[in-house]
Amino acid sequence: MEIAQPYLLFLGDVHDQLAAKTAQGIVDWRRDWCLGQLRLPGCKADCGIPDMTLDEAHAKGVKTMVVGVVNPGGVLPDHWIETIVTAISLKMDIATGLHQRLRDVPEIARAADEHGVQLLDVRHSAQKFATGKGTKRPGLRLLTVGTDCSVGKKYTSLALERGMRERGFNADFRATGQTGVFISGRGVAIDAVVADFIAGAAEWLSPANEANHWDVIEGQGSLYHPSFAGVSLGLLHGSQPDAFVVCHEPTRTKMRNVEAPIPDISDVIDMTISAGRLTNPDISCVGLAINTHALDDEAAKSTIADLGEKYGLPACDPIRTGVGPIVDRIKELF
Amino acid sequence: MEIAQPYLLFLGDVHDQLAAKTAQGIVDWRRDWCLGQLRLPGCKADCGIPDMTLDEAHAKGVKTMVVGVVNPGGVLPDHWIETIVTAISLKMDIATGLHQRLRDVPEIARAADEHGVQLLDVRHSAQKFATGKGTKRPGLRLLTVGTDCSVGKKYTSLALERGMRERGFNADFRATGQTGVFISGRGVAIDAVVADFIAGAAEWLSPANEANHWDVIEGQGSLYHPSFAGVSLGLLHGSQPDAFVVCHEPTRTKMRNVEAPIPDISDVIDMTISAGRLTNPDISCVGLAINTHALDDEAAKSTIADLGEKYGLPACDPIRTGVGPIVDRIKELF
Repeated sequence: MEIAQPYLLFLGDVHDQLAAKTAQGIVDWRRDWCLGQLRLPGCKADCGIPDMTLDEAHAKGVKTMVVGVVNPGGVLPDHWIETIVTAISLKMDIATGLHQRLRDVPEIARAADEHGVQLLDVRHSAQKFATGKGTKRPGLRLLTVGTDCSVGKKYTSLALERGMRERGFNADFRATGQTGVFISGRGVAIDAVVADFIAGAAEWLSPANEANHWDVIEGQGSLYHPSFAGVSLGLLHGSQPDAFVVCHEPTRTKMRNVEAPIPDISDVIDMTISAGRLTNPDISCVGLAINTHALDDEAAKSTIADLGEKYGLPACDPIRTGVGPIVDRIKELF
Repeated sequence: MEIAQPYLLFLGDVHDQLAAKTAQGIVDWRRDWCLGQLRLPGCKADCGIPDMTLDEAHAKGVKTMVVGVVNPGGVLPDHWIETIVTAISLKMDIATGLHQRLRDVPEIARAADEHGVQLLDVRHSAQKFATGKGTKRPGLRLLTVGTDCSVGKKYTSLALERGMRERGFNADFRATGQTGVFISGRGVAIDAVVADFIAGAAEWLSPANEANHWDVIEGQGSLYHPSFAGVSLGLLHGSQPDAFVVCHEPTRTKMRNVEAPIPDISDVIDMTISAGRLTNPDISCVGLAINTHALDDEAAKSTIADLGEKYGLPACDPIRTGVGPIVDRIKELF
């Protein structure tokens, strides 16, 4: 899936900032691509970029209007349709991460056919993948893995892309979730792929490349999460990473949405190496990304230091302290 | 997915017996459900049951015509459509395991709507699953796992269902592949489920049951297969097996369709226990099912004996020697 830039971010009339998390992520990481935001009356979210009408967006050359919000049930509210149809009439592609497919709304499907624009449902890849082959590809790959879901794997991957580029690496973020796909303009929502093709989709995402090129691949779930470990394993095998970073939220007491304990970091390292060896015998852990969002400065600092020492690995909080120590380790090893 | 019995097996005009493998599997395990076979002129397959016209099948009370063959590309040939439409006009449901959906053929869709019959595309589950929860459910479960794909997991599971029932167990085969679904009349083609729901589909397949009831769950792929390990892991977590049997083909030198070595049986046991503990801390290996199809009697006997001794587990070939030793072990342990 390829999404054309620049974007107009459509926020609808969502009731809080959290509902605009996707749009905010795009602004945080690809500010240049975002010409403006479009908010309907009553909208309580604000991504801090210029408000813009559809006509203004059209005049400035917006190529895609991204519906950058989540909505209860993932459904498109009826009163958003008119704005979307108008954007289509101005030749903008429409991209969403909602469960409901754009093409299932007759007015939108009709308008898209009439004006020849693309409807991009990031959550429903129409792409056909091959099954994974497991053959070693040229190029280097880093995968973020986690002790749980939602511990900062996307943010860590993006911070590593940025940090590695600043240090002269040829590195590209590879998106495996919907927000990531908007941020990179391409990718695959790997959890929406048919089960047989998880590893194959990961192989497509990080194809053969120059020997010194790095794919920094956004991880999903956790090998220890009872709902999603299959996705995590297929992604690990298809990514055949040379290096991985373990992402961890130290204050969490149980896994998200299930009654399962958070695994120890060393278990995640061991299981990742043990399973990852199947497609890359040289896989190794290059650091810990500790999400200290819930801690004060002092507690964050000591937690990061303690965990780094305990596991003998570079540790950092990509937001609070940057990814420098991990990039150092990568420079050292590769 | 629930498929009504009895069946008429449609073999089309396939060019060899192998193409009718699905139909043959149904006959092997559910002879009583199969009233007859319907073959078009030129058909080279024969499942050894009475040939039957659609009118005869209708008169005998057939509820479902099963398209029990594979075809290059999984496509329905045009010249099969007429027979299918006639079967529909006689109120038979149609079930297939082809890639192409029955509803995508306009004549078939129209006929089905007119006559109110079900079109069952086993490969394309329309069912919505929840994500896996990982919570322990009452009842006992056995999963067959493998050192590779296509080593006899379905056959072993069916033989265990039969063998356990003969010894007084309350046991039910649970199908995770298309042939298995036809054989059990229900189940889910787990490799066709969206990645996020693999474990959830396995939980649906083997729900809470009486404390002494056994689900004998058909495994898929292998934790060591670089294409499909994600499916195998999600199925393991969702099945939360108390017991597992390792299926192995001793003459195979590399994994099917990929350049990867066959793992050692002990690696499969260790990885299955290590990963399976997440949803069932008491998981244990209860035996080895050795597929000795490619060996002569003497070699088969010694291979089975050697492997049983090497790993300290009951070993057998479900076809050649029966599953007695594994059922003994289950009786002993549970």
